[in-house]
Amino acid sequence: MADSKDTLLLKIKEQGDLVRKLKSAKESTEKIQEEVAKLLALKAQLGTEDAAPQKFTLKTPKGTRDYNPQQMTIRNQVLEKIVEVFKKHGAECIDTPVFELKEVLTGKYGEDAKLIYDLKDQGGEILALRYDLTVPLARYLAMSKINTLKRYHIAKVYRRDNPAMTKGRYREFYQCDFDIAGQYDPMVPDAECLKVVTEILQSLDIGAFVLKVNHRRLLDGMFEACGVPADKFRGTCSTVDKLDKLPWEEVRTEMINEKGVTPEAADRIGEYVRLNGGAELADKLLQDEKLSKTKAAVEGLEGIKLLLQYCELYGLKDKILFDLSLARGLDYYTGVIYEAVLTQPIKLGSEEGTVGSIAGGGRYDNLVGMFDSKNKQVPCVGVSIGVERIFSVMEAKLAAGEMKLRTNEVQVYVASAQKNFLEERMKICAELWDAGIKTEQSYKKNPKMLNQLQYCEDAGIPLAVVLGESELKRGLVKLRDITSREEVEVARADLVKELRERIQALDVKTANGV
Amino acid sequence: MADSKDTLLLKIKEQGDLVRKLKSAKESTEKIQEEVAKLLALKAQLGTEDAAPQKFTLKTPKGTRDYNPQQMTIRNQVLEKIVEVFKKHGAECIDTPVFELKEVLTGKYGEDAKLIYDLKDQGGEILALRYDLTVPLARYLAMSKINTLKRYHIAKVYRRDNPAMTKGRYREFYQCDFDIAGQYDPMVPDAECLKVVTEILQSLDIGAFVLKVNHRRLLDGMFEACGVPADKFRGTCSTVDKLDKLPWEEVRTEMINEKGVTPEAADRIGEYVRLNGGAELADKLLQDEKLSKTKAAVEGLEGIKLLLQYCELYGLKDKILFDLSLARGLDYYTGVIYEAVLTQPIKLGSEEGTVGSIAGGGRYDNLVGMFDSKNKQVPCVGVSIGVERIFSVMEAKLAAGEMKLRTNEVQVYVASAQKNFLEERMKICAELWDAGIKTEQSYKKNPKMLNQLQYCEDAGIPLAVVLGESELKRGLVKLRDITSREEVEVARADLVKELRERIQALDVKTANGV
Repeated sequence: MADSKDTLLLKIKEQGDLVRKLKSAKESTEKIQEEVAKLLALKAQLGTEDAAPQKFTLKTPKGTRDYNPQQMTIRNQVLEKIVEVFKKHGAECIDTPVFELKEVLTGKYGEDAKLIYDLKDQGGEILALRYDLTVPLARYLAMSKINTLKRYHIAKVYRRDNPAMTKGRYREFYQCDFDIAGQYDPMVPDAECLKVVTEILQSLDIGAFVLKVNHRRLLDGMFEACGVPADKFRGTCSTVDKLDKLPWEEVRTEMINEKGVTPEAADRIGEYVRLNGGAELADKLLQDEKLSKTKAAVEGLEGIKLLLQYCELYGLKDKILFDLSLARGLDYYTGVIYEAVLTQPIKLGSEEGTVGSIAGGGRYDNLVGMFDSKNKQVPCVGVSIGVERIFSVMEAKLAAGEMKLRTNEVQVYVASAQKNFLEERMKICAELWDAGIKTEQSYKKNPKMLNQLQYCEDAGIPLAVVLGESELKRGLVKLRDITSREEVEVARADLVKELRERIQALDVKTANGV
Repeated sequence: MADSKDTLLLKIKEQGDLVRKLKSAKESTEKIQEEVAKLLALKAQLGTEDAAPQKFTLKTPKGTRDYNPQQMTIRNQVLEKIVEVFKKHGAECIDTPVFELKEVLTGKYGEDAKLIYDLKDQGGEILALRYDLTVPLARYLAMSKINTLKRYHIAKVYRRDNPAMTKGRYREFYQCDFDIAGQYDPMVPDAECLKVVTEILQSLDIGAFVLKVNHRRLLDGMFEACGVPADKFRGTCSTVDKLDKLPWEEVRTEMINEKGVTPEAADRIGEYVRLNGGAELADKLLQDEKLSKTKAAVEGLEGIKLLLQYCELYGLKDKILFDLSLARGLDYYTGVIYEAVLTQPIKLGSEEGTVGSIAGGGRYDNLVGMFDSKNKQVPCVGVSIGVERIFSVMEAKLAAGEMKLRTNEVQVYVASAQKNFLEERMKICAELWDAGIKTEQSYKKNPKMLNQLQYCEDAGIPLAVVLGESELKRGLVKLRDITSREEVEVARADLVKELRERIQALDVKTANGV
């Protein structure tokens, strides 16, 4: 039925377009009437089925959620801190549509392409929801012929994956991306991305973390040195990527049974991916009998050495771990890859466990060229902050009573102790709003005093103006401190001035953590 | 071909799921091998078609656009001012998913339902992109059993309409909604919505405007009094809604030919919808022979009178116009309706013209009940700010050179006058970033001095630290004011302190408009 109704709606739309066209072309009245009659007949078919009462289960789509005011307060605070760091590094902001031409997304995500949300073909273009912010950035750079850009982009992306919502894995989720596009000297922008991640995680105060780094060229060289044929590099790489979730034995089996790697090659890979360390490991591997003879491996190792050197200058030495097991799933990386992982277990909901990777990224030098008709490349490197997991950590803290939140910023509540003060309250509210003071009042004509004060306490509003007949006759109003319950009388004419002083004093107290 | 590939991807996904299931169930190796072989065969069919070079025209979907850094700066500034007003009135923030179950949207938008974007049925739930933020709010309130809420919501909505992008009409566009839900006394929250719109438009400094108000009960009563049958009220109402775009004669013809209104009734309606004014008009109409005998009309007029009285207390008297031609298209309004219209012509692109309505809303008391199995109502009133049109106005001002913008906030650029200073630059950058100073440097190892200074001028960066060998040897660096080109030497050890003082001085100058 849904389909036939859609067809009907489409016909109505087309017929309506026709009528409008005839009208604007000033066609004869008879001709217009004739088409209008057809339009009316179509509309009559629609009937009143739309007005049927609600029968389905009320829910948000699978893997998605609403954000209530508490969750939004957390989300906005986290995003604000992240943006502050992005801006500190001079990033500009861009935005792209939530959907792209399907062709833009095709061939960019390997096997994960099956997770893309497609839009229905309703006549016109074939569209799909964006899967990440990296491919839209590459499309934007190619389309606008931009060669250099340092941008951040904070927006929702969509993946038809199996959601694990208590762990912060959703089908609709935020990404916060920072990317540097441009032809520059090796590892200079790459190191800054790691500095950006570090500043963000420190500013969010989310616990100890480690920044794992590796290099796609080194992985390729390692596979080559271990005897994996070139056409199996990508498949082998995506299997290595599972090492953070599966033990080596299972990864080895998958390599052999599904990716066509020989047991001998798999065992050689197994030796390498166990290694991690610092610059000394890169030096050691440059002496490695097999790797030192493989051009790609040497390139990767030299790159890692330079990156580690720059990271040390940026004060990141104790955070960085060169880890040969880091692979990253996506196809488009071409150089350095990295991932930030929390090192302390964190309680989320009823489960205790690590939230895993909370930021990741790398260099992708060939993606923009895929969108350019002349295959003109714009080298890029970037990082994506996994904010949903950070939100989940914060929400768990809030639920455990480790955090306090106000979901509004109201400074003053205008209350009345007696009946029939709505008009006076309205005048005062308008005066305070016009003075820039965050103000609320009851929407009831005659609210009860107790309810008004209770509201202030629940909402965390620090000050109340209390109107009473006897005070107003003397040109006064009462000012009440909600926490201490102290009340003083102030001149009605001085109300704004008096409130401003008190709000400023409160702000200073808050800033000093009193 | 796209379809057969999608089928293939789906099969690969299903087969992959099966393999994973067998593995986690610890099935026999033979059994797993067998299914893995099938999986590999499917993957082989995929081939390498994905890697084909780009052939389609690079564009964003019809009716959508990218926002470049300038546009984002405008957008963020506008949204910040709007949120500031929302918060001043104590609103909390919520968010909902970009798509909803299709059933949630069904039957809420009348004829406009044809403009809804549907998602493709990929197995699972039937979804559609949100058309506005009002229906998702109602769904949220019903689902979470919330009876009172004052919330704002800023997010993109989707309509498959004919775009007029130079006028700020898109298929993907922002809405900024402020709504008050709860059972309160008549017109108290309604008047606050009008106060909120006024504060926002004044804060955006977008030119003179008028707030048109009307009442759905009055429209119904007027149609009744003019002899329109009750089942034709909604259709007649949506025709009246076109009066801001079409002359009365055309509206009259549509009423008669398409909505089945008699010529006599149409002419009577024509008399009323020409009227507009203030409280005195409401008083006059309460004496009107026909309207005074129609219950709905009297209710509407009494409501308008009360609203105008409250608006006067809020200082809005000279902005409000009671206008009987205002109808608003959407079905769900039940009480007061309003619209803010700019009264000055504004130049957008090559065309001069009014941008029309830039905010609108009204009361919808029955929408939440449509989602509740027991039809429990939560009365609501709200307003939506048409920010895309505001962005368009601002972008036109920018293009005309009437506005200046910086798209980054960098305070200090770290430059070097000679070669081989990358490491020293990096150390200084890290020091400044860690001190919270917004800092950039070149990503080149040996950038030219002229290019570095040119970059500062282009990006509007006010200060540069210039490293030179002779200064560093003496423990000094140069500080350059980009605008005045003055340079002073400061001790390397005092750099952060010195920069902080200069940045503060610049901020004070900017705040004073110097």
